[in-house]
Amino acid sequence: MNAWIIAVGSEMLTPFKVDTNSLAVTERLNAIGCDVRFKAVVGDEVAELAALFTRGIGAIDLIVCTGGLGPTQDDITRDALTLALQVPADEDATVIERIRQRFAQRGMTMPDINRRQAMVPRGAVMLENERGTAPGLWIERAGTTVVLLPGPPREMMPMLERVIDDRLGPRAGAAGLFRRVLKITGRSESEVDERAQPIYCQWTRGQDVPISTTILAVMGQIELHLTASASTPDAGAAALDAAVRELEQVLGTAIYSSRGQPLERVVGELLIRGGLTIAVAESCTGGLLASRLTDVPGSSAYFDRGVVCYSNDAKVAWLGVPGELIADCGAVSEPVARVMAEHVRARSGTSVGIGVTGIAGPGGGTPEKPVGTVVIAVAAPGETRVQTFQFVGARDMVKFQSTQAALNMVRLLLCN
Amino acid sequence: MNAWIIAVGSEMLTPFKVDTNSLAVTERLNAIGCDVRFKAVVGDEVAELAALFTRGIGAIDLIVCTGGLGPTQDDITRDALTLALQVPADEDATVIERIRQRFAQRGMTMPDINRRQAMVPRGAVMLENERGTAPGLWIERAGTTVVLLPGPPREMMPMLERVIDDRLGPRAGAAGLFRRVLKITGRSESEVDERAQPIYCQWTRGQDVPISTTILAVMGQIELHLTASASTPDAGAAALDAAVRELEQVLGTAIYSSRGQPLERVVGELLIRGGLTIAVAESCTGGLLASRLTDVPGSSAYFDRGVVCYSNDAKVAWLGVPGELIADCGAVSEPVARVMAEHVRARSGTSVGIGVTGIAGPGGGTPEKPVGTVVIAVAAPGETRVQTFQFVGARDMVKFQSTQAALNMVRLLLCN
Repeated sequence: MNAWIIAVGSEMLTPFKVDTNSLAVTERLNAIGCDVRFKAVVGDEVAELAALFTRGIGAIDLIVCTGGLGPTQDDITRDALTLALQVPADEDATVIERIRQRFAQRGMTMPDINRRQAMVPRGAVMLENERGTAPGLWIERAGTTVVLLPGPPREMMPMLERVIDDRLGPRAGAAGLFRRVLKITGRSESEVDERAQPIYCQWTRGQDVPISTTILAVMGQIELHLTASASTPDAGAAALDAAVRELEQVLGTAIYSSRGQPLERVVGELLIRGGLTIAVAESCTGGLLASRLTDVPGSSAYFDRGVVCYSNDAKVAWLGVPGELIADCGAVSEPVARVMAEHVRARSGTSVGIGVTGIAGPGGGTPEKPVGTVVIAVAAPGETRVQTFQFVGARDMVKFQSTQAALNMVRLLLCN
Repeated sequence: MNAWIIAVGSEMLTPFKVDTNSLAVTERLNAIGCDVRFKAVVGDEVAELAALFTRGIGAIDLIVCTGGLGPTQDDITRDALTLALQVPADEDATVIERIRQRFAQRGMTMPDINRRQAMVPRGAVMLENERGTAPGLWIERAGTTVVLLPGPPREMMPMLERVIDDRLGPRAGAAGLFRRVLKITGRSESEVDERAQPIYCQWTRGQDVPISTTILAVMGQIELHLTASASTPDAGAAALDAAVRELEQVLGTAIYSSRGQPLERVVGELLIRGGLTIAVAESCTGGLLASRLTDVPGSSAYFDRGVVCYSNDAKVAWLGVPGELIADCGAVSEPVARVMAEHVRARSGTSVGIGVTGIAGPGGGTPEKPVGTVVIAVAAPGETRVQTFQFVGARDMVKFQSTQAALNMVRLLLCN
């Protein structure tokens, strides 16, 4: 079963408000194996919404439309559906009675304007609203089911649950959609896709449990989103486990999470598992590395301290970097990064120390060491690893990518 | 001029991700008097996107489409547009060369798959991407302009700005919209609105240059967006200057920028103007304060160093906080924050020192000092100010609000 979701309301066509109802609707539809193929936001314009209904009816299995069911002139969803179906609408006396009672309960008289909410396109079924005056509607036409739900989430959600449980779920059968997010760093999107594509392109054809794959490049990382369509949660999980294993064979340790976790959390879990602690010495990342490590709740169990040494004075006084070393090799160099990592580790008595030094830009670059040159050292018991990177992008990108690379070096060192 | 906005990407048809690019696009289009009539999200399906293009071309003035311009198989926007226009696509050698150079800068070879990004539907104009490999496209057909922009906001935004400035803005006509963003911290949205509303409600009626006002509550700050509709830039600027002066009279120093600048930049300018330097000692903010200060290009002129002391050991050893003081008052206390600020200032020889200690949560709260309790001290020549705050929200919210309050304390101290 495939679906469209339409959100109605001019406020969602301003710079200030997005449609979030569709997330909850998608989640519930996915759970019964119904795929969302298209989402739209339409303003309070009868003709435009009617045209969209007309296009969908006969072309898609299900249209879920939220909003525009209120009593005022700018609530146009009922009218648009009536227009698209080209049927008359009748006033439903039971609905009027129900709305009248809701008002009476609060000691009020129903305003005449609310009669609009009782207009039912011929052939439609009313869906009761436990939490407001706006009833929903359900109608089937030309192989398409149209469901109208109210816009306010607290009215929409219980009505959605009931429609799923009583009407859509039984029709869809048991099949569900199950997801897994793989996160990768240290590789470009094209490198990942060149390796992964020959594998995931197999999963859609003729398998018991087909899996669709989306590849997403986010700053400093690549995400692979796998979606399995299976008849039971167990079958979905088994297929996804097998799929992840196949990808692990070609991508190896480049995958840092197959459960969608951020890298700082993966590193935190490795530190906890090993009973280890960490301290960091930063220059060009300016505190962002410490900040990411401490974004994880409970990070005080392993994060001891960090020091941000922007000035060379600070590097000498706080990190024991010899002035001559800076004079000879430059502040951005492998020997300096090494001293930073080893000194912060020794000074704080932690298991792991990180040193990061580089040129975040936009100023400070030279022909030999252009903006984006970053040297990272990770000191651990018995071993210090040092690596030089060349990142591309604005200051914030260089900062973020540097922290990503530093966390990844720690991860790889602790994995091995 | 009326527009459609289309976001392309299957990930936005999952329960986890909404299209937020359309908010920025809407804001910029509104600024040149262009109305958004319809928004859609389409998955990575060539036929569906092509059908939507086909429906829009000839029916609407402008279609802005974001996403799906990457190099991989699931990036289908170029193909869909080519299909809808029914024209051939040609490989553009200059684009290939540009992409090749981007890879070369990072010491990498362009994978063959990236050639896809150089395919241009005949008649289209390439839009250069300063921050990524995916170029944008601009094409006009049957009275409709179609603009394709990349999906990642940091690549999309500069390209959008340029399209608005160079191509769409001039076409939209002479009467211009001019904006000013006032940024406020340390006040609630209702406090700000109670003072500002009686003033800005005057600006719409019968004035030569009407100004519309939007109030936006963002984490840790309030923004007032003023939009003047004027016949010349001078008239717009004069009206906005007068409007800002009126608001300054009722909001005073709560306004930290009337040019939309981030707080860390405002503080940086105050430090530069005074020939001052700064050092920070952080606990609960975990490096975020140093990271925000160093987000500003050129901040090495005033930012000397920072230290993140998560463990009490680190506070004692690195910040000279007496162990008995922690035992007596607790690590989250005004005396400890004061020592942190004064010690980091003395130790690094800077003009200003900041100390931040608090409970970011979710753990660590007590009945007397619940999660969100944060103490901030600012030490300057001849004066140390200390203040205790109670913030609400998750760990990342408490961290951000704490840095906002710390930067604001520095600003107020340097302003006076």
